[in-house]
Amino acid sequence: MDEMTNGRDLAPVLDRVDRTLEASLERLFDFLRIPSISAQPAHAGDCRRAAEWLRDELAAIGLEASVRETAGHPMVVAHDRTADKSAGRLPHVLFYGHYDVQPVDPLELWETSPFDPRVVRDEAGARIVARGASDDKGQVMTFVEALRALKAEYGALPLRVSLVIEGEEESGGANLLPFLKANRDELRADVALICDTGMLDGGVPAITTALRGMVGEEITIHCANRDLHSGIYGNAARNPLELLSWILASVRDHDSGRVVLPGFYDGVQDPPAEVRDQWRAIAPSDAEFLGPVGLSVPAGERGYTAVEQTWCRPTFEINGISGGYAGDGFKTVLPAQASAKVSFRLVSGQDPVRIREAFRAHVRAMLPADCTVEFVGHGGSSASVVPADGPGLGATLAALGEEWGRPAVTIGSGGSIPVVSEVRQALDMDSLLVGFARDDDRIHSPNEKYDLVSFHKGIRSWVRVLEALARDRRFAG
Amino acid sequence: MDEMTNGRDLAPVLDRVDRTLEASLERLFDFLRIPSISAQPAHAGDCRRAAEWLRDELAAIGLEASVRETAGHPMVVAHDRTADKSAGRLPHVLFYGHYDVQPVDPLELWETSPFDPRVVRDEAGARIVARGASDDKGQVMTFVEALRALKAEYGALPLRVSLVIEGEEESGGANLLPFLKANRDELRADVALICDTGMLDGGVPAITTALRGMVGEEITIHCANRDLHSGIYGNAARNPLELLSWILASVRDHDSGRVVLPGFYDGVQDPPAEVRDQWRAIAPSDAEFLGPVGLSVPAGERGYTAVEQTWCRPTFEINGISGGYAGDGFKTVLPAQASAKVSFRLVSGQDPVRIREAFRAHVRAMLPADCTVEFVGHGGSSASVVPADGPGLGATLAALGEEWGRPAVTIGSGGSIPVVSEVRQALDMDSLLVGFARDDDRIHSPNEKYDLVSFHKGIRSWVRVLEALARDRRFAG
Repeated sequence: MDEMTNGRDLAPVLDRVDRTLEASLERLFDFLRIPSISAQPAHAGDCRRAAEWLRDELAAIGLEASVRETAGHPMVVAHDRTADKSAGRLPHVLFYGHYDVQPVDPLELWETSPFDPRVVRDEAGARIVARGASDDKGQVMTFVEALRALKAEYGALPLRVSLVIEGEEESGGANLLPFLKANRDELRADVALICDTGMLDGGVPAITTALRGMVGEEITIHCANRDLHSGIYGNAARNPLELLSWILASVRDHDSGRVVLPGFYDGVQDPPAEVRDQWRAIAPSDAEFLGPVGLSVPAGERGYTAVEQTWCRPTFEINGISGGYAGDGFKTVLPAQASAKVSFRLVSGQDPVRIREAFRAHVRAMLPADCTVEFVGHGGSSASVVPADGPGLGATLAALGEEWGRPAVTIGSGGSIPVVSEVRQALDMDSLLVGFARDDDRIHSPNEKYDLVSFHKGIRSWVRVLEALARDRRFAG
Repeated sequence: MDEMTNGRDLAPVLDRVDRTLEASLERLFDFLRIPSISAQPAHAGDCRRAAEWLRDELAAIGLEASVRETAGHPMVVAHDRTADKSAGRLPHVLFYGHYDVQPVDPLELWETSPFDPRVVRDEAGARIVARGASDDKGQVMTFVEALRALKAEYGALPLRVSLVIEGEEESGGANLLPFLKANRDELRADVALICDTGMLDGGVPAITTALRGMVGEEITIHCANRDLHSGIYGNAARNPLELLSWILASVRDHDSGRVVLPGFYDGVQDPPAEVRDQWRAIAPSDAEFLGPVGLSVPAGERGYTAVEQTWCRPTFEINGISGGYAGDGFKTVLPAQASAKVSFRLVSGQDPVRIREAFRAHVRAMLPADCTVEFVGHGGSSASVVPADGPGLGATLAALGEEWGRPAVTIGSGGSIPVVSEVRQALDMDSLLVGFARDDDRIHSPNEKYDLVSFHKGIRSWVRVLEALARDRRFAG
């Protein structure tokens, strides 16, 4: 493989990455041991600890690093200005990642403790297993370790680098946008490098250029003023669990799989035929997409492949329901209330504010006069699309292709990374979404993992990408 | 008030009940302090402790009392054979009650600890507050204290008395029927006196002559082989919470309020017009029935009053749903499974086995090919109706009327007390359901209570009822 990028020899840096992988892994393990679950107030101290740990690591590499307060969990911000400016203006990149992780329940499904990271080696390969291994601590450490190797080998980075690492990506992220706005002058760069996405199955490196937005809603329906005995009141008194089931079952048309909220599809367009054709060529088939998770019958919207449904179609999901008695045995209770957490994934053209209002109106219209509903909004972000001719895209694709030995592709993703639209809004910058996660990483699930090869070649990839961006005249201009 | 029943002066016994009420209350409090939650395996020891406590109390009164093993929680059985047989064959009654209680969650809604009983006195009157105060420890102690007062005053009871007190009424009660069958010769009597029901609102004493049966089912739907990220898989992968909502929402027709399972209403008949007219005369209106629990719009089946719906119409209830993330904040999980606990209340003519099968077939028919369902059956009992000319009914109505100073009535109840059909099946006996609970007792709910007057006059009622049954020549014959 050619270790030269526009004339500069990367072999010593890549060798250093290979040689020091064990130490890199030890540092990642230290990071993974901190249970920084941002959604759970009991872990607020752990979130701060993760931020401070990261600040100290970045400072040890030689960056100006600080922990910065917000109304919620703190931000980590760091800058490196060691790049040699003698050749003219250098490009400036802003790395983004998050140090917070998802909750770990159901804990009993974890094979080992979620905050006791380990490398498991079997016929499927070697993988790092822990909460946050893939989402997003492992990915964050790919670029931190790349910066470390470059600085250790050359004493300086090839371009100007800043980082902003947040602690609320998994819990609404309400404080990122105000923080970016308040620190616009400090954080504005030529492009944001966001490492929170994945590759295509089979190890094809990818830049994600289409991401869905999200609207999260928590609804609680109140009926009687106390829990009732279902024998004495059943049939005559409204059952909030049944009412909730009616409401949730009514959001999607069961035949077409389409969401029935008025105006839900306003502004939604199918991707151009050539994009759809390209996706069909590179994306897994329905069987390949669903088979690994034990499914075979595509749910959701008719007329689209499973991948199209997740990459470019909006949807409604129920993320949790609770109410009544869920313990051992049986309790013939008719509960006073029932709750659900639901979310909508949005595509380009949909307005999160209008979607939230349409859902709330739909729920209210189904409520009998003696019942009430409470709504709590969680997150709300538009879909984001990175332009095909965006800054640095070509150079990054080329660098990724060199590292992985196969052409890199641009793909869509069903997930939502609100930072993309927030960076656009607050800093007027485009983003490049480059990540090394795999579909089977079990992010948000028990036994989350990150392939050791993702971590190792992820570090190497960033070395190459940074060098390529530094030399990309179109980009630096 | 006339304290003479067929010539015997009850005044000394009733005076004793009044005089010793404080001591009776202390004993009930001891009983209530034992957290005998039969549905929760962690409380198995407490269930045994409650059984032993009751055995010791009955032995202290002078009964032959024992704790008897079953495959589950033990039974308490006691006999009294002190009655004077010189006047010929005496009637034999079998008291039934249960020492187990419902779970206490949601614990945070209890104003005081559920197993720290207290008497609360305010403008609403005096009430005993604790889990089990009404269902059923308070009611059990009404007849235990009546036996104590009669034996203390006269040294003997006026008729032959046996008791069987079970510990699994709130958790399926699977061991009662086999126990009754295995001990048929020992337990068979002229009538069972079951104290687990209530009065009409306004303090009208009542005998419950129609009870609904019950079928409980727990269903768990499995879709993907692990929890998924709702962004990556949402829309394309089946969401078990949505599927469960569809299934649960489909059991009842939303317009008519009727259950749609094929054959569900086979054999169901409206009560005769004169019974319906009588009920409409004595029963609370929809507003009176629903108002106290904070509701005003009758749910369920159209064309029936709220009371008719609960006394004589079958229904479907959802008692609990769980699945996905229900903790603080938000988690965009697409869970692998979702569960619900549901129950059907049955009326006369419905076969619990057929209803269970019809529900299971309905669920299976809605499952996509790549999803599975697990069923766990909980309880299954037919409705029971006590004949209007059943043994001792007239004498008991008269005795209750004397104690409460107003005519006693026969009523229906929406609840299910499987023991009625099990006593009929195993012991070939009719039952009389006499209880002093009130609709606002919050049984199965936080802050369960039993009015102090229910406890006090309940004891006095049993003194009168036992005397009346002893003197009822038609009954003793």
